[in-house]
Order: sequence, then C-alpha cells, then structure tokens
Amino acid sequence: VRVVANRPIGIFDSGVGGLTVVRSVMERLPREEIIYLGDTARVPYGSKSASTVLRYSQLSTRFLLDHGVKLIIVACNTASAYALEALQAELPVPVLGVVEPGAREALAATKSGRVGVIGTLGTVRSEAYPRALARLDASVRVTARACPLLVPLAEEGWLDDEVAEAVARRYLGELRQEAPDLDVIVLGCTHYPLLRPMLSRVAAQLFRHEVVLVDSAVATARAAASALGERSLLRDGGGGGLTCCVTDDARIGEVATRFLGHELRNIRRVDL
Amino acid sequence: VRVVANRPIGIFDSGVGGLTVVRSVMERLPREEIIYLGDTARVPYGSKSASTVLRYSQLSTRFLLDHGVKLIIVACNTASAYALEALQAELPVPVLGVVEPGAREALAATKSGRVGVIGTLGTVRSEAYPRALARLDASVRVTARACPLLVPLAEEGWLDDEVAEAVARRYLGELRQEAPDLDVIVLGCTHYPLLRPMLSRVAAQLFRHEVVLVDSAVATARAAASALGERSLLRDGGGGGLTCCVTDDARIGEVATRFLGHELRNIRRVDL
Repeated sequence: VRVVANRPIGIFDSGVGGLTVVRSVMERLPREEIIYLGDTARVPYGSKSASTVLRYSQLSTRFLLDHGVKLIIVACNTASAYALEALQAELPVPVLGVVEPGAREALAATKSGRVGVIGTLGTVRSEAYPRALARLDASVRVTARACPLLVPLAEEGWLDDEVAEAVARRYLGELRQEAPDLDVIVLGCTHYPLLRPMLSRVAAQLFRHEVVLVDSAVATARAAASALGERSLLRDGGGGGLTCCVTDDARIGEVATRFLGHELRNIRRVDL
Repeated sequence: VRVVANRPIGIFDSGVGGLTVVRSVMERLPREEIIYLGDTARVPYGSKSASTVLRYSQLSTRFLLDHGVKLIIVACNTASAYALEALQAELPVPVLGVVEPGAREALAATKSGRVGVIGTLGTVRSEAYPRALARLDASVRVTARACPLLVPLAEEGWLDDEVAEAVARRYLGELRQEAPDLDVIVLGCTHYPLLRPMLSRVAAQLFRHEVVLVDSAVATARAAASALGERSLLRDGGGGGLTCCVTDDARIGEVATRFLGHELRNIRRVDL
C-alpha cells in the first residue's frame, strides 16, 4: 500500500478549467503529487454528444493510468455527466466525478428544497445533476439552465463588469422566473468559480433572498480526501507537486494562471 | 471535363458556422451539388494551435476527396489562416479559403485605408487577414480584435438584444479606440453574419461615420464561381443539392437552420 500511496493523483478535464479543481485538491491535500491532463486540443466537451465525450475521456484516462496514478478525478462536468459510470466500471483505480460531490453539498445547503444548476449545454442536457440530486433526495426540485457565454467570459477575464453582469442577469433572471424560491445554485462548470463574486451579487439582486453558490471543485477535493483516506492511500510525506499536460498549448499560458491562482510551470504538450 | 464538372463542391468547417458559406454558394451557384463537412466533434478550431488545426483540416479534406469533390472551400477562418497553403500544396484539386476573398472585398470598400478585422482567437493570432491585406496593398493599415463571446452569442440566438449590444460595444469600442478612422470591418468568422444588423448599428453609433461590414462568405462564393468558371468546371444542368456530414450530431438540428437560412435535411454522422 505504501508504494501505491506514493503514486500521483490523476486529474483530467477538457481544457484548463479543471485547474480550479487542481487548486482545491492542492489546498486540501498539499502532500500529494498531481498529474493533470487538459484535453485542450478538443475543448470544449460541453457542446458534444455523449459518445464523443466518452471516447475522449477514455483516451485521457488511459494516459493517466500509463503514468501510474492511484486515483482519477474527472474534473470536467460534462465528462462526469456522460462518462463517469463507464470509467468506474472499466478502470482498475477509483474514479471520482465532480457532479455527485456538488449535488451532496447543494442538498446540505438548501432550505427551500429548490436547487438551481448552471453549466454547459452538455452538462445540462445530460441531466446528471438532477439525477444525482434525485438519487440523494427524491423530494428536491431542480431547475437547470445552460449558460454557454460564461466560459468565454471567464477566459476573457471579464469577471465583474457591465458585460458580465448583463449576461448573468439574463441567465439568472431566467432561472428566477422558473424557480423564484430556489436558494442554492450549483456552479456546474469548472470555469464558473472565477465569476463567483459577480454571480453572487447578481443573484442577490434578482432573488432578494440569500442564494448559496456551490462550488463543485471544493466539494470534489473533499471527496478525494475521503476516498484516499478510506483506502489508506494518502501520502504521509512529501511536499506535493503538479505536472501539467495538455494536448494543445496555444492558450495555456494566457489563461491557466487565472484558473490555478498561481503561475503554472512544468507544462508538457502530449498526444493522446 | 464534363464528368469532373458534375462532381460536387466540398466545403468544410470546424462546425456549423460554415453553413453561412454553403448558403452563399447555393445562392450564387444553384446548380451545384455540395458536400459539407462540419467537424463538430472538435469544434471550435479558433482557440487551437496551428499544428492541431492543420492535422484536423487534413482529415477533413481527405474525407471530401474520398467523395470525389472537384473543388474544396475551407469555410473556417481559422483553418484558412493556418492550413490553406499546406492544403493547396498537397491536394490534387483547387482549394479556396475565406481569408483572401474577404481581404479583397475589404480593400475595395475602404476609403480611409484603415481596416478592422474581428474573428476568433486563432484567426486573429494567425495574422492571416493583415498578411493577406498587406500582400494586396502594402499601404493599408489593419487593426484586429479577437471576439470570443460572439460565437456563443450567435449560437444562443441572442442576435440583437441588450446582452449582444453590451458585448458588441465592448469589442467594437476597443477597435474604435485603436483606430477611430477605420471604415471597414471584416467579419472574420462564419458565425458573425448572423449578428450583422446589430454589429452594423453599434458600429454606426460608436464610429459616427459609415462602417462597411464585409462578409467573407459572400466574397468566397464569388471566388468559387470564378475558380470553377476559369477551369470550365461549372455544372451546366441539375437542380443542385446539399449533403451535410458532421462528426458529432448533438447540436446540429438546434442551430444549423439558423445558419443555413432554411431547414437542414440529409444529415450524416461520420467518423474521420
């Protein structure tokens, strides 16, 4: 077990957004080595079909397994929605998605029993969050809305300005119209935590009661710590580290730092 | 030659946006058979590197050649920017991009000699339009701005509303700050013609003089007609037709109609 515990944690995502999950895992588990794979050549998964997303996810997990990981985190919400069960069935290591941890935290936070979910087209179309929430509590009611403008907004760095507010008012306004009593919104996309302060303010203006924004990245890091702890696979020494691999390196320097919260060194371009 | 003339025209794009080029070609050349390939499984190309875009473009053109096309139009601005010269060198049929026709039309329209270009990150980073314009007229000055929010805006169908205006004011305002005397803006992305009326109005408000918006799709259809005419490869009979192939069919029904201008039948899912 000791030998296995020293192996890295593998985290993959369709692009750079999953670095928000890396950041949460590094904060929670600072001794762990992390190998991150961003499939930036084929980003985004959010507008692609289930079979395409599964195929790409299998290529990513094969790459991570070849690098000897002890646990895999599917940081991409769309891949968690479409591919997680298949990956869990076919892979020899534990596989965690971001959907179930986010759903658990949403349930813990809601008082009205009415939960909102925002994400990419793929995540919303997959109905992964409504299904995960229903499995945990059949009485909860869920309203979901795809928000395809939020990813480019985060990548532009327009995190809190007139344009960001106009976009947020439109999306959250539609949520409010459908579900005025919702009190929790799950940020069902790895890019959205960057927009959190602005989304939080716009939500407060529109709903006129407290709305908790649930960040799946934080919830997933907690779930990873539990999964490793239960299996006695937590590293008990070492200073941690991150190796970042991408399938296309065109934009990585521009935007990765914003997602990770500090500068990103040690980037490798790989083919899957 | 007669036999070759009866072959289809091949048009490829990273996604559904190239259907605006299909539409222009159908209007200009109503007797031609068209085979369209949208690489929707890997859309968008706009944020990917030159080598990745070239690799994907080669897969697309191989598919079209296997279907016996007489001419290939690279409808994707990013692929035109990164892959056109390589494709022209290695393929046995004429290959047209959208950049050069758009650049020609921009030069014909400008009086101030100052031209703006808007497009995806990839198209702008490639500097394909500035280089094409400089080849045609060394004295022209070009200001380019990547506008990553415009594609999701077009796909949402938010073509002319408060959000669209706020986004356009931001992007065009930055163009104006850099080049207040520009009088032509090239719509350097297949999605942008859908936003044309709104962009045109916002440009008029900001610049306070006439700004011509150049649609590369229309210019490219004209160039295709010339290329086929010169080679005596125009069909002289037949009622035309369109076969549409996509590498992922998740969204095609939702958005294709908006781009093509009429309902899209005859869609095939293909693997490259």
